[in-house]
Amino acid sequence: MKEKAQNRMKSYRRELWFEVPTRRAFINITPQVESCLQDSGINEGLALVNAMHITASVFINDDESGLHHDYETWLEELAPHEPVARYRHNLTGEDNADAHIKRQVMGREVVVAVTAGRLDFGPWEQIFYGEFDGGRKKRVLVKIIGD
Amino acid sequence: MKEKAQNRMKSYRRELWFEVPTRRAFINITPQVESCLQDSGINEGLALVNAMHITASVFINDDESGLHHDYETWLEELAPHEPVARYRHNLTGEDNADAHIKRQVMGREVVVAVTAGRLDFGPWEQIFYGEFDGGRKKRVLVKIIGD
Amino acid sequence: MKEKAQNRMKSYRRELWFEVPTRRAFINITPQVESCLQDSGINEGLALVNAMHITASVFINDDESGLHHDYETWLEELAPHEPVARYRHNLTGEDNADAHIKRQVMGREVVVAVTAGRLDFGPWEQIFYGEFDGGRKKRVLVKIIGD
Repeated sequence: MKEKAQNRMKSYRRELWFEVPTRRAFINITPQVESCLQDSGINEGLALVNAMHITASVFINDDESGLHHDYETWLEELAPHEPVARYRHNLTGEDNADAHIKRQVMGREVVVAVTAGRLDFGPWEQIFYGEFDGGRKKRVLVKIIGD
Repeated sequence: MKEKAQNRMKSYRRELWFEVPTRRAFINITPQVESCLQDSGINEGLALVNAMHITASVFINDDESGLHHDYETWLEELAPHEPVARYRHNLTGEDNADAHIKRQVMGREVVVAVTAGRLDFGPWEQIFYGEFDGGRKKRVLVKIIGD
Repeated sequence: MKEKAQNRMKSYRRELWFEVPTRRAFINITPQVESCLQDSGINEGLALVNAMHITASVFINDDESGLHHDYETWLEELAPHEPVARYRHNLTGEDNADAHIKRQVMGREVVVAVTAGRLDFGPWEQIFYGEFDGGRKKRVLVKIIGD
């Protein structure tokens, strides 16, 4: 599949909403993003999926609960939630400085190729919402451009 | 806002220049990127903002000085600048191996949705230039495509 | 170079294949991506380059062997391969939990601006495939959209 000339650029936008009851969680959002893509009618292009909040991530990895446990443990060692006083950001009255750091490690966004109307994925790629400071409503933005 | 058929693809490019006097700093560049977007005349599309240098980052997070202090402290623990001899890269005569590592953690680039002529942001999202090896002129690239 | 009106959107897709004999390696894939871009005939747009596998990375940094040694050493300290039993993911029969973590730190993908038919790079930017669980065939996806 080399080069394809196309006539019009389309764009599509949708917000996905989450309210995670726990402080931290990983949620597979691949089905929602696929549904956005179908709805968009776009066949060739790029899909951006990003957290709209700065203590949450969108990333691509494996849908395996043991791995998610490993991420959780490893991130908590790397940037512990407590003692909250170890972070200057928490002097503002927040207790989520660790969440801002964890989100940087895991990433804000993914860009996924759209080919022949599908998310152009390898065999194990799945898109996750990573929550690091739950208990409130947050959004993920899906923006697709192409034709 | 579902799907919008559009007729022409536009592209826009601008470089932002920085010369940070200190070794490390975080600079809010959101106003400059917004100005690029206005200048582009693009309403729907994607904006790529990336460091053109490999010891600097572009990332999105909170404009809060305590948090920036926490990032600085945490990154310096994770990949200390000194002793410079701990890094093989520094045998080349450089002393910035730590900066190459810090930049990987914080990221090279962000991709931001453009919707109705605006950067399509959540409530607290701001774009930062992260300098990890200052004292020289460096550039950030803003590339916007859409219509 | 401000704004350019363009008439048609093109898209291009190619997979790059790798089979790294060692567990870990960094491979400069810039020439292959440049060759894709030439083949695409696209002059203005965005190029997405992503690992299609979840224990591998695509990232941009310096082509300097000392630095690659430093990345290797630093990542191995941050998320050691052994003892494999320290990771719950490895209870599935895998031994690559560390590779899933290392890939998150280094990143899945890069998005590169395409300007005047070239990868729009700063002076030292080079694209790397980062393998963290080698010994099998894996792919990188190159998707370019623009005109």
